[in-house]
Amino acid sequence: MKVPSPSAREAASMYGTAVAVFLVIVVAALQGSAPAESPFPFHIPLDPEGTLELSWNVSYAEETVYFQLLVRELKAGVLFGMSDRGELENADLVVLWTDRDGAYFGDAWSDQKGQVHLDSQQDYQLLRAQRTPEGLCLLFKRPFGTCDPNDYLIEDGTVHLVYGLLEEPLQSLEAINTSGLRTGLQRVQLLKPSIPQPALPADTRTMEIRAPDVLIPGQQTTYWCYIAELPDGFPRHHIVMYEPIVTEGNEALVHHMEVFQCAAEFESVPHFSGPCDSKMKPQRLNYCRHVLAAWALGAKAFYYPEEAGLAFGGPGSSRFLRLEVHYHNPLVIRGRRDSSGIRLYYTATLRRFDAGIMELGLVYTPVMAIPPQETAFVLTGYCTDKCTQLALPPSGIHVFASQLHTHLTGRKVVTVLARDGRETEVVNRDSHYSPHFQEIRMLRKVVSVHPGDVLITSCTYNTEDRRLATVGGFGILEEMCVNYMHYYPQTQLELCKSAVDPGFLQKYFHLVNRFNSEEVCTCPQASVPEQFASVPWNSFNREVLKALYGFAPISMHCNKSSAVRFQGEWNQQPLPEIVSRLEEPTPHCPASRAQSPTGPTVLSIGEGKG
Amino acid sequence: MKVPSPSAREAASMYGTAVAVFLVIVVAALQGSAPAESPFPFHIPLDPEGTLELSWNVSYAEETVYFQLLVRELKAGVLFGMSDRGELENADLVVLWTDRDGAYFGDAWSDQKGQVHLDSQQDYQLLRAQRTPEGLCLLFKRPFGTCDPNDYLIEDGTVHLVYGLLEEPLQSLEAINTSGLRTGLQRVQLLKPSIPQPALPADTRTMEIRAPDVLIPGQQTTYWCYIAELPDGFPRHHIVMYEPIVTEGNEALVHHMEVFQCAAEFESVPHFSGPCDSKMKPQRLNYCRHVLAAWALGAKAFYYPEEAGLAFGGPGSSRFLRLEVHYHNPLVIRGRRDSSGIRLYYTATLRRFDAGIMELGLVYTPVMAIPPQETAFVLTGYCTDKCTQLALPPSGIHVFASQLHTHLTGRKVVTVLARDGRETEVVNRDSHYSPHFQEIRMLRKVVSVHPGDVLITSCTYNTEDRRLATVGGFGILEEMCVNYMHYYPQTQLELCKSAVDPGFLQKYFHLVNRFNSEEVCTCPQASVPEQFASVPWNSFNREVLKALYGFAPISMHCNKSSAVRFQGEWNQQPLPEIVSRLEEPTPHCPASRAQSPTGPTVLSIGEGKG
Repeated sequence: MKVPSPSAREAASMYGTAVAVFLVIVVAALQGSAPAESPFPFHIPLDPEGTLELSWNVSYAEETVYFQLLVRELKAGVLFGMSDRGELENADLVVLWTDRDGAYFGDAWSDQKGQVHLDSQQDYQLLRAQRTPEGLCLLFKRPFGTCDPNDYLIEDGTVHLVYGLLEEPLQSLEAINTSGLRTGLQRVQLLKPSIPQPALPADTRTMEIRAPDVLIPGQQTTYWCYIAELPDGFPRHHIVMYEPIVTEGNEALVHHMEVFQCAAEFESVPHFSGPCDSKMKPQRLNYCRHVLAAWALGAKAFYYPEEAGLAFGGPGSSRFLRLEVHYHNPLVIRGRRDSSGIRLYYTATLRRFDAGIMELGLVYTPVMAIPPQETAFVLTGYCTDKCTQLALPPSGIHVFASQLHTHLTGRKVVTVLARDGRETEVVNRDSHYSPHFQEIRMLRKVVSVHPGDVLITSCTYNTEDRRLATVGGFGILEEMCVNYMHYYPQTQLELCKSAVDPGFLQKYFHLVNRFNSEEVCTCPQASVPEQFASVPWNSFNREVLKALYGFAPISMHCNKSSAVRFQGEWNQQPLPEIVSRLEEPTPHCPASRAQSPTGPTVLSIGEGKG
Repeated sequence: MKVPSPSAREAASMYGTAVAVFLVIVVAALQGSAPAESPFPFHIPLDPEGTLELSWNVSYAEETVYFQLLVRELKAGVLFGMSDRGELENADLVVLWTDRDGAYFGDAWSDQKGQVHLDSQQDYQLLRAQRTPEGLCLLFKRPFGTCDPNDYLIEDGTVHLVYGLLEEPLQSLEAINTSGLRTGLQRVQLLKPSIPQPALPADTRTMEIRAPDVLIPGQQTTYWCYIAELPDGFPRHHIVMYEPIVTEGNEALVHHMEVFQCAAEFESVPHFSGPCDSKMKPQRLNYCRHVLAAWALGAKAFYYPEEAGLAFGGPGSSRFLRLEVHYHNPLVIRGRRDSSGIRLYYTATLRRFDAGIMELGLVYTPVMAIPPQETAFVLTGYCTDKCTQLALPPSGIHVFASQLHTHLTGRKVVTVLARDGRETEVVNRDSHYSPHFQEIRMLRKVVSVHPGDVLITSCTYNTEDRRLATVGGFGILEEMCVNYMHYYPQTQLELCKSAVDPGFLQKYFHLVNRFNSEEVCTCPQASVPEQFASVPWNSFNREVLKALYGFAPISMHCNKSSAVRFQGEWNQQPLPEIVSRLEEPTPHCPASRAQSPTGPTVLSIGEGKG
């Protein structure tokens, strides 16, 4: 890796003589030490053409992410960074650029107009720049938090990576406006938990669930449905791991994949391979909703904890599985064939515990609604102490993974555990949640839930583009707030969700009537969505709805399956009383700030061995 | 000022030999340059005994305060600093202490339990430590903002200074808990505006309004009332300046003083000199409420702008003035005599403009109320565009000073100017407001208000110690939210205040009834305070009251005097629509942070010339 390093002045003059050489020149700088070995377990293509490829690793000890960015066809430079939701404005960036005299690497940020500025505090640190046969390879690192107000805070959950390609040399960094560049975004869970891989049983076998030879449609978004079938008489097994199989060359097209088990009540499900929204799709496929496996771009293999496995096969369960593949094809590439899918690793030697999936959050009902034109409206669903007391075993359950779910307006999701009225732990939090990126995520720390604990799931929605209230429901334009908790040992409790008491909602509509000159329809024949649609959304009606949701009693769904409730009174339940809230996480400011450079790094250029 | 400076080691050994000497030893250190000359225009005693005396100066160019702390009878050290409201917990401190081996000066902070910690970032910089005949004199400086989360941000308005006295040497700074010390607080406007003194007219004369030979009562708080009388036939003059006269030796006892003019409708007001709450006090003194002058501890002379003066004397105005002196006597010193008062500087050569005082904020009415147990409940009063359009001259008015006023639960007050729906400027803001420290303050920048502008005055209240709602009104246990704006040229508009529409408040009580099982009295004979007293204060009723105040139409008082309204419809007015709010001020982080020491300063000790 070591390369001769001439001075910056030499480097500059070399650039001056031949800027075009920037495309192919061997660039190398060494300003720190790279992490030891096999340093980059995670990879993702950034752009659909595959020009930019990111590899990364996380050091939790240093609270630092190591990035390796491969730029395949470098022209005059590249921007890479992170932003709240993938926009190129208000983004935290590193920029590699040339002004014809030299090449520079600097920590920068873009303002709300997309104008790029050099950061007064340089927190991205370049460790190496090197030519490889595939392209220019930049190695740099960034602490999770920098305490610089222009910097992005790297947190658990989704991170929106952004990039931009510079076509021409620039007099200065300040000449860049991101609006004039070829840019894009890629979502990824940057802070992958570092969990040791559990050993697989000796008798582990594999099964590939893949749709053979799909002709990827020439359209931006396709959900492909495929029905697979377990062998006749396939006995009960435990899935202990699964991993993606992505057809080579299609890495940037296969966005996510899920395997569902169909409902046991159907003797058979017709075979099918086609778009999920096809009119040819058999109705029965809608009853294949029990998640067995889920993968999304950037994720690696999913392992069950050593003492648990997900049961499939055997009596009382369907032999039919539905594979769903989301093809994301923004360049509308045509004629590409694909056979991606998921490889299940399973064992006949059942592990000690069955793993289960429990649904937390809000009941799918229109009584929970979001006014239009809200930037961050929060709805909260509860799993009450009364329900966990009744349904969980005395030793509790252990949550090891979680998949968050909302529809289109969801922006944040968090589930918090409360014990004796005090919030004690975050089960899963995604402050940059995107409905377009729903992974099953291993938790960095297993969370134990005891009988009597409360689980509070809050979703934050943005309805700035809506004209009417967005009500809860199944429709894609309605909303959900769900956390699918993966845990063991499995219990009968499948669903622990809440919604506001409908009677109190009717009091709200009455109050709205009283305070507003316009008429809100509260006539008995009007449905709740109709009532919400006729609310005049002034500040008072918005605030009072918020206050209602924070005060009114709830209806609990404490259910064995979506239709069967545990015995007890579940209507008009009091909201759990929380006397102490968890504080928002505050970043550690790196102590080593003084060491970092205060301006951009001039790249030292030499002939590398790469 | 230069003194020989032996090494720290020498210093330490000197200390080791004779700790008691710490009391009298000559201490000197020079680590920076002191400001040029007459450097400390502002002075205040910190403790009632006069042991600690603070002088200071402000450099707006450097955004830095220079402090000089005189410690008269030094034992083992001293703590000095600032905190949100004068508590010794969560305080930002400098500490001078000795461990018997050495003497140290360091930037420290106390946590919520009063435990003192050395600050990782040293932002108080010691410039000099010197023995003087009066005691040890420490000179140090601090930037307004440090960007250190443990540091206090020095802002406009009230600053609560705190102090503590160390009686014994300590092994380390961490051995200090403020709860075990003799401590106290002093309120002061630290950031005095630097306004050039306007020239006084050649014919300026003075008049002293002082209560002669008052025997200060042996109780903690006394408001002393004294009636003074202008000479018979005293013609119209302009007050152009006034200053405090504080009897020597009583500097720590005289807390604030105000001169009021009595109402013109009384031919005469009986003479009186006694406590304002005395049963002997003539009733007519209650009609002496028009402020002519106000001074509080730490304030200096008050100058009117060169083109304006405050009219007094002449036909149509009372000849009687009421002086009110607040004696703050926490040590219950007895037998002390005082003749403090205010010296008015006035001229017969009337200036171009009469100055006026306009009252902004909330009408004194119980419809504006604060629920109990609130830590930061905000009430807002408006001066609407309709009123300023009608009452202000086309060229506008110029606000040069302001006095904020609430009763006991007030914690913050701010008035903001809005033009065309956008907040443009802060007229006056005090984020550490104390009802015990109500000064007339010169504005650092004169604010011009045009016809059609809106003035928004918001007060933040803390009612944690109240069991029932606190309603608006005149009583000391009721609340006010007032900004007395001093401006010129004088207009007829004396009062521009608002309150929520009473009809909408009744809708609120109805709603509270509907949503709560408990009964709220909305019967017509119940008064508003009674109605508020019967509200069960759950989260819903609190939030909805907030929402009501942020939404419901208002009644405006756009008055020539407290009884005479400008013509127009002032009931059921819409709330001013504000489309863009001013952002909270964010401090500049000093760029020179790298220069400051990272640990405490060891004091170099030598024989000074002081």
